[in-house]
Amino acid sequence: MNNQNTVLEKIVSLAKRKGFVFQSSEIYGGLNGCWDYGPLGVELLKNIKEEWWKSMTYREDIEGLDASILMHKRVWEASGHVDNFSDPMIDCKQCKARFRVDTLGDAINEKKKGKFIKALKEKVEGTDNNTALEKVFDIYSELDERFEAIVEHEELSKELLALVNCPNCGTAGEFTEPRSFNLMFKTFVGPVESTDNTVFLRPETAQGIFVNFSNVQGASRQKLPFGIAQIGKAFRNEINTRNFLFRTREFEQMEMQYFVQPKDDKKHYDIWKDKRMQWYKDLGMTPDKLRFHDHPEDKLAHYAKEATDVEYEFPFGWGEIEGIHNRTDFDLQRHEEFSGKSQKYFDDEIKEKYIPYIIETSAGASRSFMAFLVDAYHEEEVKGEQRVVLRFHPKLAPIKIAIFPLVNKDGMPEAARNIEADLRQNFRVFYDAKGAVGRRYRRQDEAGTPYCVTVDTQTLEDNTVTVRERDSMEQVRINIDELKVYFLEKLA
Amino acid sequence: MNNQNTVLEKIVSLAKRKGFVFQSSEIYGGLNGCWDYGPLGVELLKNIKEEWWKSMTYREDIEGLDASILMHKRVWEASGHVDNFSDPMIDCKQCKARFRVDTLGDAINEKKKGKFIKALKEKVEGTDNNTALEKVFDIYSELDERFEAIVEHEELSKELLALVNCPNCGTAGEFTEPRSFNLMFKTFVGPVESTDNTVFLRPETAQGIFVNFSNVQGASRQKLPFGIAQIGKAFRNEINTRNFLFRTREFEQMEMQYFVQPKDDKKHYDIWKDKRMQWYKDLGMTPDKLRFHDHPEDKLAHYAKEATDVEYEFPFGWGEIEGIHNRTDFDLQRHEEFSGKSQKYFDDEIKEKYIPYIIETSAGASRSFMAFLVDAYHEEEVKGEQRVVLRFHPKLAPIKIAIFPLVNKDGMPEAARNIEADLRQNFRVFYDAKGAVGRRYRRQDEAGTPYCVTVDTQTLEDNTVTVRERDSMEQVRINIDELKVYFLEKLA
Repeated sequence: MNNQNTVLEKIVSLAKRKGFVFQSSEIYGGLNGCWDYGPLGVELLKNIKEEWWKSMTYREDIEGLDASILMHKRVWEASGHVDNFSDPMIDCKQCKARFRVDTLGDAINEKKKGKFIKALKEKVEGTDNNTALEKVFDIYSELDERFEAIVEHEELSKELLALVNCPNCGTAGEFTEPRSFNLMFKTFVGPVESTDNTVFLRPETAQGIFVNFSNVQGASRQKLPFGIAQIGKAFRNEINTRNFLFRTREFEQMEMQYFVQPKDDKKHYDIWKDKRMQWYKDLGMTPDKLRFHDHPEDKLAHYAKEATDVEYEFPFGWGEIEGIHNRTDFDLQRHEEFSGKSQKYFDDEIKEKYIPYIIETSAGASRSFMAFLVDAYHEEEVKGEQRVVLRFHPKLAPIKIAIFPLVNKDGMPEAARNIEADLRQNFRVFYDAKGAVGRRYRRQDEAGTPYCVTVDTQTLEDNTVTVRERDSMEQVRINIDELKVYFLEKLA
Repeated sequence: MNNQNTVLEKIVSLAKRKGFVFQSSEIYGGLNGCWDYGPLGVELLKNIKEEWWKSMTYREDIEGLDASILMHKRVWEASGHVDNFSDPMIDCKQCKARFRVDTLGDAINEKKKGKFIKALKEKVEGTDNNTALEKVFDIYSELDERFEAIVEHEELSKELLALVNCPNCGTAGEFTEPRSFNLMFKTFVGPVESTDNTVFLRPETAQGIFVNFSNVQGASRQKLPFGIAQIGKAFRNEINTRNFLFRTREFEQMEMQYFVQPKDDKKHYDIWKDKRMQWYKDLGMTPDKLRFHDHPEDKLAHYAKEATDVEYEFPFGWGEIEGIHNRTDFDLQRHEEFSGKSQKYFDDEIKEKYIPYIIETSAGASRSFMAFLVDAYHEEEVKGEQRVVLRFHPKLAPIKIAIFPLVNKDGMPEAARNIEADLRQNFRVFYDAKGAVGRRYRRQDEAGTPYCVTVDTQTLEDNTVTVRERDSMEQVRINIDELKVYFLEKLA
């Protein structure tokens, strides 16, 4: 195991021990691809969502929305998910195990592959229709990287599958025909399990915004350009879940769809691209670990004219935490077509009716959570001792202030309890009277608490306490009467 | 239609027009039992949830949690939902339509019923085993109220079903045998649709708390008594959805499970009962429209030792908005049995190991939303004109302050815009420059905005504005420099 993955394992372990993230249904052996947020995790997640919500909806031109997870089936026919949101799968005839075709590249028998490529090469050289064959050759040369070619070039798929040993039982090349497997979870509404009654758990929150475009515009009386923001769960029946919170079956999204005049699409795309990157930096994420990954023109999704990912450098490599897309008028066009309801907007400035373009900012709440957690994680040596500290931005920290009564004498628990009661009106505070003060500090460092207040003998004499800052570990003495104002300035 | 239902219809209509609640997937004809929260609705819902979350978790003895919606199947076997969470259903043999048995009372043919009851009565009189038959007679006499008897007294069900005409096609008495229909939505995880891979969408959030009891207790180092609080979506495949947000297929719950020493159950049950009722009153709900409905001992759920509902008087009658239950050690006992993992707690004060009792407070976020909306709705006559006003508690109001620039002259939009920018840092504000001031007031009354600030000619002369309060409609002039402090006092 390399060092990078060791770091991730340490973080997963800390996340469980401190109550950030538990495995779902853990006492029953867990449910793959689902996670539960514990006492500290739920606060961190709430704070991330709240910061996003404020940055999006505390402005004049963006409205909020909370659409249902179950939606009408036609929504997903219009969006293209019923037809296209699928992976090709095959079964091993021997052991009946099922695999996503594009993962089989790893199971290619290298010796057989060498022979196959050689034979293919000879074939290419001895034919007239060189261009087509050469293209096939190119695809097959990089087979272990991308095995989807099997599906795209069906005429050769049998020859190709002959090169693969089943990753489960090892049998060579005995697979069923590939068939497509839709990634949407499906269920039935009402008492009859029929096609008519099929509904899907939404695989993205975006469509909830698109189908509400007219309703929201009408109720809010907004004029273009304006946006609709939504936070909510989405579900994908991923075959291979991996990397902790990075690829899961249940996850949360923070999406904002900005409706614009078609001619202004580029301008708003660029504005939102900058704005969204800045959001992560403003909340303390290390700038060097953030980058854009622009999608090249030939790899754009069917609905996109321009697209970029905000990527974070996780221990396992760069990974997308947000996508910014120019979706053009694709979605509203499709919903107009499938619903028969006009999705056009009458622009009374230019006296024209048109379907707006959409600039989408689609952030993963769960992925952002993981990125903020990973980014905050630090191991340091302090006076010869190891300390683990989570350097959360104060706005994101689950607990803002911890209060430690240090001695047990007359008037003591009361003095500390009074401070607690006073600060609790404004902040999430934590009271800890147990163990040596050093251990109490370490526990709060691991929780990412930015400030600890120690109440000691001197407090009873001069009404002052010690405030210790998490990252610098510097301590200052402050009069109790000034404490709340001090923290309001530091934390608000 | 009676007056009560007219009121509900008006509220549903206002909810759509103003952007509180839209039908889910409306452009596709809607998805029965699912609703979307629009710009004002999402804020009201957020505010309700935030007040609940603060009241629950801004204290030392309650931890937060956010468990996944998809959980391991064994959870629902242990909880009893797989076996018991079902309704009896039958199909009409003629038209194949499916009905919940207990709704068929409405479709009884009255003439046939009269004859049947008469015959039954004669039978009762001519037999020795009078007690049993009389009981059957009692049940059958009130058949149209509660048709579940069909299932409970199977031996007579055929005779009974003969009295019913199919509510769909009208055919008399040709039904299949009743069979039970589980209310949990089911789906499949992974690529194979098999029993092994079945998972359910949680029908309640509570089980997510129970299965995390050990994890949360360990990570938080809490000692009994302590609680775990959670807000989240739950799903029930209701056959008959009705009354707007009251009975839906997708809804949100706010649940807190309080773990106590078995001997203290009554004490904590009473404390939470009072506390939860007070919460609604503190947020402005009309006390006369709130009541407890204690469950009589013979109607308690299988897990409950004591139970009460907090009920609100909706336009359609009294309805449950929260349940408070003494669940005893039932749930943790069952999870210990089904998972093989100890759910015992070692109490180091009394040096004993035991399974805690659970006092549950289970509130509907969606139902509370509806109750707060209905309760806020008022129609009044003001100077001969009708006004509709939503009297939300300021903490719940979606918009806190509206700002109206009144004249269009030098320095004007700027003065109003400056106030807006300043107040937006602390509050959700709304800027409206369109239409007569009276109409602007009405629009904000319908949105439930507690304060409107008008910026007029005098503002440019003496730096004052008019602040108008929603309910009293009283107006005061306030200096701009004092505006923020004024609102912080009124709204914080």
